[in-house]
Amino acid sequence: MTQLTPTLALALDLISRPSVTPEDEGCQDLMIERLEKIGFEIERMPFGHVKNFYAKRGNKGPNLCFAGHTDVVPAGPESEWKVPPFEPEIIDGVLFGRGAADMKGSLAAMVTAVENFVAEHPDHNGQISFLITSDEEGPFVDGTTRVVDTLMERNEKIDWCIVGEPSSTKTLGDIIKNGRRGSFSGDLTVYGKQGHVAYPHLAINPIHLAAPALAELASTHWDNGNEFFPPTSFQVSNLNSGTGATNVVPGKLHAQFNFRFSSELTFDDLKEKVLHILDKHELQYDIEWTYNGLPFLTKPGELVDAIVDAVQTTVNITPELSTSGGTSDGRFIAKMGTQVVELGPINATIHQINECIDAESLNQLSLIYQRILTNLMAK
Amino acid sequence: MTQLTPTLALALDLISRPSVTPEDEGCQDLMIERLEKIGFEIERMPFGHVKNFYAKRGNKGPNLCFAGHTDVVPAGPESEWKVPPFEPEIIDGVLFGRGAADMKGSLAAMVTAVENFVAEHPDHNGQISFLITSDEEGPFVDGTTRVVDTLMERNEKIDWCIVGEPSSTKTLGDIIKNGRRGSFSGDLTVYGKQGHVAYPHLAINPIHLAAPALAELASTHWDNGNEFFPPTSFQVSNLNSGTGATNVVPGKLHAQFNFRFSSELTFDDLKEKVLHILDKHELQYDIEWTYNGLPFLTKPGELVDAIVDAVQTTVNITPELSTSGGTSDGRFIAKMGTQVVELGPINATIHQINECIDAESLNQLSLIYQRILTNLMAK
Repeated sequence: MTQLTPTLALALDLISRPSVTPEDEGCQDLMIERLEKIGFEIERMPFGHVKNFYAKRGNKGPNLCFAGHTDVVPAGPESEWKVPPFEPEIIDGVLFGRGAADMKGSLAAMVTAVENFVAEHPDHNGQISFLITSDEEGPFVDGTTRVVDTLMERNEKIDWCIVGEPSSTKTLGDIIKNGRRGSFSGDLTVYGKQGHVAYPHLAINPIHLAAPALAELASTHWDNGNEFFPPTSFQVSNLNSGTGATNVVPGKLHAQFNFRFSSELTFDDLKEKVLHILDKHELQYDIEWTYNGLPFLTKPGELVDAIVDAVQTTVNITPELSTSGGTSDGRFIAKMGTQVVELGPINATIHQINECIDAESLNQLSLIYQRILTNLMAK
Repeated sequence: MTQLTPTLALALDLISRPSVTPEDEGCQDLMIERLEKIGFEIERMPFGHVKNFYAKRGNKGPNLCFAGHTDVVPAGPESEWKVPPFEPEIIDGVLFGRGAADMKGSLAAMVTAVENFVAEHPDHNGQISFLITSDEEGPFVDGTTRVVDTLMERNEKIDWCIVGEPSSTKTLGDIIKNGRRGSFSGDLTVYGKQGHVAYPHLAINPIHLAAPALAELASTHWDNGNEFFPPTSFQVSNLNSGTGATNVVPGKLHAQFNFRFSSELTFDDLKEKVLHILDKHELQYDIEWTYNGLPFLTKPGELVDAIVDAVQTTVNITPELSTSGGTSDGRFIAKMGTQVVELGPINATIHQINECIDAESLNQLSLIYQRILTNLMAK
């Protein structure tokens, strides 16, 4: 049987709270209690229904922040799980439960890493902080972004930030994310004129009008990416038109699309290119944009060096820097001018039935986090 | 107040029966009672839940058949009607009610036309028949097509057929339909591979694959039509893809399309052209075809001549021959080798809220039908 280290015990405790987004279910209280004991000053920052807290130890010098979220995605059909999703269990060394990898395991590793570091270095350099939300998997409106706005209003600075998102793919620490592409979506409505298929001259088919424009958008080469970013990518995620009847020409078409974009292009550049293509095809349309975030990039430097060393020392591999994959709250923190890196466990099972994580890897993750603290904050 | 002629009285009686497809609600009994009285032999031909009847007067010589349906489309929200849809009323000379134009008015006009003709010509030439169904607005599986199959099995022949569909557009008799385009539908599923929009290299977007193929199908010129038919037309009626989530690349796309085709091309020609385009774009797909009917054409000849004369004599206009517009049960009757023509009231309000018809035009329609009988069957 796997030995229940403090990291695993805390992870189990956190996972057993069914904090489906935006609920927190006492997870933050649990973390706060531990951090208060080792001298952190706690600031609860609820916004709307979302719980957040910011905790800090130390008052001057560079601020190293651990960021993460206590909310999880829904469990899906419980009957398909090996163990009930909110009754975590370690089976043959593997910890099962919703949030095991995304990201209650990381939260537990952060807390124990800081506990161990502070025990060794009660008078560390700089400031250590936590920025924790319960709204990362949800609409991310009242979570990290509002805490960051509040900190910026009072000129509080975070210099370095480690986000506990599961960045690893095959083995712990193989990949760290030193940036993320930008993201935005468009909701496109193309207008035609409804009619009977038998009288096509009296109707205008928006599917026929939109198809060549969508084909051009789908085949457009937006950029080549750059040293840090893969090429910008465009994907139509939803496309709907039609009344359901087979003899009716529909009156409009609705399409939703998403861009993941590199730092080679801006939101405005891409909007302009899309509008140009739609106009070229002479469509009658409305479009609504949803802007999810700028690309951000943390170039190799103090934080990246400290992390690479910590991974090498602890698990003997050299992490690859990557900016691929989805968005995270890192984008909101980066706007403070912070160096942001995501480092967490293996992401193979996140958001799935039977989310799980190698139990021992969480103990190692705690050691890695502790070593980063040592590299950057030890006297 | 409009005088309640026998034609209008019978139309009101038929409309007051809420025979939403495939129900008949006693409409056929009403017609049968009238036809029996003037010497018709009645054959009820129910198939499944659908009521049909075939009635005939006379045993030899050319067979002139009146064809139609007692079912109507649903009324829609009753509160939007000027009168309750199944409580017909004549207001300022206009008869309102579901089925007034499509096609209980025509049924009433047929019955009174035949009554008057038989009274004048009890020993008429040839055979007069009725082929009436309650499944024209529905799936048209157990209606006219099965009656026709039954008649063909016993070598019964219909030489001339007048379908009472509302063929007129601006004034009674301005258009008669001497044929209809063919019609078939395709249900297309294009397969991709579902994935996260942030990892497009792991997904295959079926919308991106299908868009250029749909664009090519929509812009293809299929034929030029001919003397009798407008060009073949292709319309996508329904298009759906996507999980609803904006960050997921969907796994498949579903499209439904419909062809209305001239006699220049066959179903097989068009199928082959569609498959060629889909294959050229290297799509992975399934396709299911629904064949609705061959084009049919009644060239000018005895029946058309008799009808044109009857319209000219009765309402003093020369009808235009047309093959445009939707399908009707005429296509099923045409396969007997029958000359089929559609002649009925103005179609401006059919299938709509406040379906209505100029009451006097139904009296005129009865006179036109009677004149056709005189032209073809009088001794």
